Amino acid sequence: METNRVEAFSDGVMAIAITIMVLELKTPDTPDLHGVAQVLPTFLTYVLSFVYIGIYWSNHHHLMHLSDKVDGGALWANLNLLFWLSIVPFTTRWMDESSLSPLPVLVYGINLLLAAVAYTILQTRLIRLQGAESRLARAIQSDAKGKWSLVLYAVGCLGAYVSVWISAAAYVGVAAMWIIPDRRIERAVADGD
Amino acid sequence: METNRVEAFSDGVMAIAITIMVLELKTPDTPDLHGVAQVLPTFLTYVLSFVYIGIYWSNHHHLMHLSDKVDGGALWANLNLLFWLSIVPFTTRWMDESSLSPLPVLVYGINLLLAAVAYTILQTRLIRLQGAESRLARAIQSDAKGKWSLVLYAVGCLGAYVSVWISAAAYVGVAAMWIIPDRRIERAVADGD
Amino acid sequence: METNRVEAFSDGVMAIAITIMVLELKTPDTPDLHGVAQVLPTFLTYVLSFVYIGIYWSNHHHLMHLSDKVDGGALWANLNLLFWLSIVPFTTRWMDESSLSPLPVLVYGINLLLAAVAYTILQTRLIRLQGAESRLARAIQSDAKGKWSLVLYAVGCLGAYVSVWISAAAYVGVAAMWIIPDRRIERAVADGD
Amino acid sequence: METNRVEAFSDGVMAIAITIMVLELKTPDTPDLHGVAQVLPTFLTYVLSFVYIGIYWSNHHHLMHLSDKVDGGALWANLNLLFWLSIVPFTTRWMDESSLSPLPVLVYGINLLLAAVAYTILQTRLIRLQGAESRLARAIQSDAKGKWSLVLYAVGCLGAYVSVWISAAAYVGVAAMWIIPDRRIERAVADGD
Repeated sequence: METNRVEAFSDGVMAIAITIMVLELKTPDTPDLHGVAQVLPTFLTYVLSFVYIGIYWSNHHHLMHLSDKVDGGALWANLNLLFWLSIVPFTTRWMDESSLSPLPVLVYGINLLLAAVAYTILQTRLIRLQGAESRLARAIQSDAKGKWSLVLYAVGCLGAYVSVWISAAAYVGVAAMWIIPDRRIERAVADGD
Repeated sequence: METNRVEAFSDGVMAIAITIMVLELKTPDTPDLHGVAQVLPTFLTYVLSFVYIGIYWSNHHHLMHLSDKVDGGALWANLNLLFWLSIVPFTTRWMDESSLSPLPVLVYGINLLLAAVAYTILQTRLIRLQGAESRLARAIQSDAKGKWSLVLYAVGCLGAYVSVWISAAAYVGVAAMWIIPDRRIERAVADGD
Repeated sequence: METNRVEAFSDGVMAIAITIMVLELKTPDTPDLHGVAQVLPTFLTYVLSFVYIGIYWSNHHHLMHLSDKVDGGALWANLNLLFWLSIVPFTTRWMDESSLSPLPVLVYGINLLLAAVAYTILQTRLIRLQGAESRLARAIQSDAKGKWSLVLYAVGCLGAYVSVWISAAAYVGVAAMWIIPDRRIERAVADGD
Repeated sequence: METNRVEAFSDGVMAIAITIMVLELKTPDTPDLHGVAQVLPTFLTYVLSFVYIGIYWSNHHHLMHLSDKVDGGALWANLNLLFWLSIVPFTTRWMDESSLSPLPVLVYGINLLLAAVAYTILQTRLIRLQGAESRLARAIQSDAKGKWSLVLYAVGCLGAYVSVWISAAAYVGVAAMWIIPDRRIERAVADGD
């Protein structure tokens, strides 16, 4: 089974998840700077979620590019990842509506954490499928970033009951860490092509 | 006529149907565990519908992969399937809003049943088009799973007036049966490639 | 300029327009047959709009398949068509919310009419671009169906002030006429391939 | 890294942004001409935003067509552009809900301005990546239109506090300027193919 239709479907789901969040954005009650200030926190969570889905899309792009084949298990691992990404608009909305209450902030972190776990499962499955000598396996030898992300997510989740700023710092931190493109994979792509 | 643009359009519709359901998810009234418990049934029906559309996407993927050509009739059989999948978000929402009343649970089952019938019609049409000696025809000789699904859907629909748990068990049962990828087709794909 | 990205974008817009209409569907007030009867007219207009966009997708598919190149003008003619298709969910919703009042029924007809005009402009542009000896030009010699559609739309629009049933009959009539795939083009596709 | 999946994802986001705006359109309160008159301003802003996203799609199409490769930086420059396009439905909605108050009209202009800046960054990055002798670099030598757009956006933004008609004229003016396809690029595409 080839990867192109998996990519097309995944692109579709990620493009929709990243775009429909705008439907959730409430407009300010008043057309003045006070109104803008009021929606600013919501807007920033929107930006954060947009960046997260963008990161997943970018990494997914690389992952699939280095994979030549997928099987039934990889399809389901991919659907699992898409599931957790597809509910990001929901957990983002809850966090906003609750004015950053601890539980919704924790749930948002769990959502990101489960997306990260789903991504790792997909990656592992694809590496096994391509073989230990494949370009993909060589590109992803240690996954330090992935492990640090899990630690930061855990800090963000637990920190929500101390201060949501700890959570915010942790979630933004993971995003910042990943915005820098994965040079291991990028190099492997460049070498392989 | 080739299958690639049919796949692209179908992927689009299925990706949207699977993703916009999140817009229907109501956030909890309170940011605590009580609120989470309150939205949990809704969330589980969301998961079920997500899995169903995921199954259809996966099987559709296989079906098209084994088909070399489509005609006008197959295009309409495909649109018929997409129609029933596109209203899954609506029947899911009604079921949730009614707190799992019998009629909406029955209607949800009818929706799934008609999607299954539409899929069978599309499959039959594509088999006839590819010919009796085609890879697709050989891959799908008996369709035991398809027949069992119809029986279980009927049980789920009728059971709604006895207990919605019968329906839930039936609908989850069909999904579980299909999550296991269709080995017949997968084998045929592997042999053919 | 090649047609594939135009097709991809058009598929996207049509897939979204056809699928988001389900977000507009109001669930019945009560979970019983009375509730079902209450939403039935809305559901039928949903089906009609779904079929219309399906017809456009199918014909667009054929049209692009027979075209080898597009230019800037064709891109804008295509965007014009997509615009009128993208507002079908809006005019459908207004028609439903007004319980089929004459003006919204008329506006729905105008929407369909302008989509048909936009399609004709796109078709004309593409024929000119491919040349008089092209497969596309030979496939579409007389456009009797297109002309009959315009007549029926006009009847449907004007009839709205006599009885919305005249409009309904006209709009359903055009859809029925087009559901039958365009044999001229289909034959040309088959001959050309 | 190749451009095709970037195009697919970008097409998806732009197709969704352009189509979901219709969900924001409020239907008239009354099914008569008074109701139509009431929603007309909203409808016109919808048309304007549709045209803007259409222009971006069309130019993006050309830009990618002339690019043979993308890198991580270009991916993020592209996501930045998609971000500003994805919030056009939000700023359009705010402008409408506030009945064209100065601040929302200004914010809409800033949105357009930042999308234009994002496009310029993407274009610059892609030109550098393809090299000074590439088809893309030769196609875009002076970018007079781009510079005039920035001036007009600034006029539109500042003018909002004098009269929203100045803003409207400026925003419509930029759109009109770009609807005419970019002949430099179109010629380069034609020459190159």
